[in-house]
Amino acid sequence: MTTIQDFTSQYGLVKKIDAFGYLDYLKANPDAPRKHGKIVLVTADTPLKASRGEGKTTTTIALIDALNKRGIDAAAVLRQPSMGITAAGSKGGASGGGKASLTHPELIDWGLTGEMAAIAAAQNLLVSFAEKAIDDGKLDTILVPRVSEVPSRSLRSITVDAGKNNVAEKVVLTPTSELMQIVCLSRSMDEIGQRVAKMIAGTKDGKAVTFGEFVDLWRITGILSDAVKPALTETVNGSPVYVHGGPFANVSIGIPTLVSVEMACSLHDVVIVEAGYGADAGAQKWLDIACREYGAQWPSAAIVVTRASTWRDDPELAWRYPFHVDRLEKLDIPTFPLINLWEGEDDQVPALRETAAELGFRTPIVGNLFRDGGEALAPQLDGFVEALSNGSMPAQPHSHKGMAIIENIRWVAEHAYGVPADRVVLKDGFADSLGAASALCADAGFRLDDLALVAVKSPATMTDNDRAPEDERTVTLKKVEVHAGAGLVHVNLTSSLTTPMPKIV
Amino acid sequence: MTTIQDFTSQYGLVKKIDAFGYLDYLKANPDAPRKHGKIVLVTADTPLKASRGEGKTTTTIALIDALNKRGIDAAAVLRQPSMGITAAGSKGGASGGGKASLTHPELIDWGLTGEMAAIAAAQNLLVSFAEKAIDDGKLDTILVPRVSEVPSRSLRSITVDAGKNNVAEKVVLTPTSELMQIVCLSRSMDEIGQRVAKMIAGTKDGKAVTFGEFVDLWRITGILSDAVKPALTETVNGSPVYVHGGPFANVSIGIPTLVSVEMACSLHDVVIVEAGYGADAGAQKWLDIACREYGAQWPSAAIVVTRASTWRDDPELAWRYPFHVDRLEKLDIPTFPLINLWEGEDDQVPALRETAAELGFRTPIVGNLFRDGGEALAPQLDGFVEALSNGSMPAQPHSHKGMAIIENIRWVAEHAYGVPADRVVLKDGFADSLGAASALCADAGFRLDDLALVAVKSPATMTDNDRAPEDERTVTLKKVEVHAGAGLVHVNLTSSLTTPMPKIV
Repeated sequence: MTTIQDFTSQYGLVKKIDAFGYLDYLKANPDAPRKHGKIVLVTADTPLKASRGEGKTTTTIALIDALNKRGIDAAAVLRQPSMGITAAGSKGGASGGGKASLTHPELIDWGLTGEMAAIAAAQNLLVSFAEKAIDDGKLDTILVPRVSEVPSRSLRSITVDAGKNNVAEKVVLTPTSELMQIVCLSRSMDEIGQRVAKMIAGTKDGKAVTFGEFVDLWRITGILSDAVKPALTETVNGSPVYVHGGPFANVSIGIPTLVSVEMACSLHDVVIVEAGYGADAGAQKWLDIACREYGAQWPSAAIVVTRASTWRDDPELAWRYPFHVDRLEKLDIPTFPLINLWEGEDDQVPALRETAAELGFRTPIVGNLFRDGGEALAPQLDGFVEALSNGSMPAQPHSHKGMAIIENIRWVAEHAYGVPADRVVLKDGFADSLGAASALCADAGFRLDDLALVAVKSPATMTDNDRAPEDERTVTLKKVEVHAGAGLVHVNLTSSLTTPMPKIV
Repeated sequence: MTTIQDFTSQYGLVKKIDAFGYLDYLKANPDAPRKHGKIVLVTADTPLKASRGEGKTTTTIALIDALNKRGIDAAAVLRQPSMGITAAGSKGGASGGGKASLTHPELIDWGLTGEMAAIAAAQNLLVSFAEKAIDDGKLDTILVPRVSEVPSRSLRSITVDAGKNNVAEKVVLTPTSELMQIVCLSRSMDEIGQRVAKMIAGTKDGKAVTFGEFVDLWRITGILSDAVKPALTETVNGSPVYVHGGPFANVSIGIPTLVSVEMACSLHDVVIVEAGYGADAGAQKWLDIACREYGAQWPSAAIVVTRASTWRDDPELAWRYPFHVDRLEKLDIPTFPLINLWEGEDDQVPALRETAAELGFRTPIVGNLFRDGGEALAPQLDGFVEALSNGSMPAQPHSHKGMAIIENIRWVAEHAYGVPADRVVLKDGFADSLGAASALCADAGFRLDDLALVAVKSPATMTDNDRAPEDERTVTLKKVEVHAGAGLVHVNLTSSLTTPMPKIV
């Protein structure tokens, strides 16, 4: 009998799985034994700053350990941390901690089995071929950025071909690249090739030119051959954890690869998908991009992680956590608050529970997950497990394809940030940027409004002025960028950083 | 019983071996069963241009297949091809061809299991930390280049921090980096850490500052944890092939990792080490750097590969091939000419053999290795096998440490390029460059003359004017660059390219 083992290879201390092949097998063999796991979204409060995590990964790890302890077959799908974060060291790794850890966190944090590096090489190779296309007279401008695996302050702004043509370029962190988005959203290597072919390389006489017009696609797919396979590792308690695809829901889509989630759902009853930074970034993108536009499964439940200090110690920002919980509940997703305690906070539990009750939350799950791991959660999960077992498989949501980009971003601002349409402001230049993007798409033979919307924003804020009273908060739109291969259009809010290249700290 | 299997992990379609661990085990267990394989150096004629290979890898693969067919336990150690070459596509892969192929050439050509990418990330991370050191007032200038996995014309010269400090920087291909040299030359992760600590990051008030003064070395060794393990693949006929470490003997040391060769020698009776481009680059560096200064084993025999067209079709350059063969013979290395025929050249064999006899060569090995593989070689190897079995293990050569750099380069010019000391010319500015390098080393507490010499040159020429009559040929020295961590000093000849960043073609 064919099983997932036939698609699994040992890869040093982790395993890699040919998810494309396995999902093809399931499609061709509809009677093959499989599961139809439900998805739980683990997302978070909006962090106070980008470098401070609420503990989504720690929670995700503790949660599957707790569920498995209760006899429920649960797995997690994590995004691969950016070495830009682990290298910088300010945030530490992104693979849990303490009793809620992976067996080989150092591998996950420091490049796994080369997935991110392969995507970096392939994206940079596209830039090299674009340069050659300039030499060959096929391109005038290059619109794809270079990428780097490690952050470097000085790469925020560079001039290449210095002393000759002095071309201004930008370098972004690998996970934010269009190629990473393509890897996350594609369900076959053929689809990756087709999407790379549709990427807009640059312009010639003002018209869009795609990579399909001049690049040997086999070189790109060749580099990616192992990178498209999710890695399988496990928690220190033996729960399975798939790691695949790019982080950074603030400047990109911030979701794991769709195939890693679909594969996990065919193998386990409950699949925890981690999406962050906060719910305004990660959950919004899982729901409105992955589910709404790319056929991912709607979550059967959600957990919104916060730290006591994030939720309550800054009264002006305390509206954000209940906003996230309410928003998900309003979407009929049973949503459980989870408060991830740090050392010395145990005595706050009664007060936290009281506040949660006042806000009408479901009974919150509270624990020091670093110190106590899944043990601390297992006894608190009755309500969560009941909600999961009661819920039917949710339906797919409607696509927003064809909705004007401005209407779409207004819809996001209202639903995900709590800012009504009339307080979504267009910055000077936004209309020009939108017009140029629209023309670029028209050149390339498709409509801008048929792309899925990616709101590019600060990870630590939801609006222009989160500290203002609710009826004064605004969202300002700055510019538009087309990722035609990924099928996405980025709309930068003014809260976003100008370039996603952090300074090493 | 402990065996190499205990140090071997499956890594997708190839295996990876903890060579550091295995060699430590052998050191701690001197009675453990092991072999003491002899090394055969496969090197080549100087190619007519850099993008044209003579067929060293094809020869190496055919040769181990032929030896194994004859019942001799032979393995090869190859350098990992640069994706900069395979991506560019002009030279094709570097993993043999036709019947003399590896089982998974696409893996070898396109990033293997991420070794090169990890080295790139680690070297670029060093640059990022150097930038931070500038912010922190610990550095004024940065002397380490960034690296790229793929070639990009425009990166030959870049300005970073554009619009602010406008710092001129260079980007080189990963295999040419000092960190690659350190990986190739080190025999433990501790040694790698110590060598990284000694790398000169830049200067502060004109004095050398090393990375050991401000970088967390565990981050660098963490990134390299899997990259230091040689990969094991095989030929289509099942002969073992270890792949590890950087190419490019023209701009760097161009040798595989020393540990991969030492490990292979403990496991097989004959170990073929490939070193190129030509003998003036690859063999010179294996003999004078790896053997003379870093304790590598002196070869028991050599094979010098040429193509009929390289050797004979350009009369002005026809002196180069017999020069290489003679030079190695004079070093008491039994040296076998090997002529790698291309399609349509079979009828040239008698004439080629005649020329070889006139030149006093040993009986040449001749075959179309792409078409016929090891089958074509096996019957021709009697003399080669006899030379190998007769030869005793050669002694280690004397170190040149302490010899003045200029004397050392004159010695190399005379022995490896056939240009006597009085025709080694110093270009304007060379003396200044030498003086500055010497002062930099003195600051850092060691002597320039104690570093091993790396001649940086064109892969396709041996002198300033290879086409001139022998007594008019010169070698001109351009500048000096210190790689203190690797223990190397680069001396650039004027024939070298200004930057090892090819244009994609």
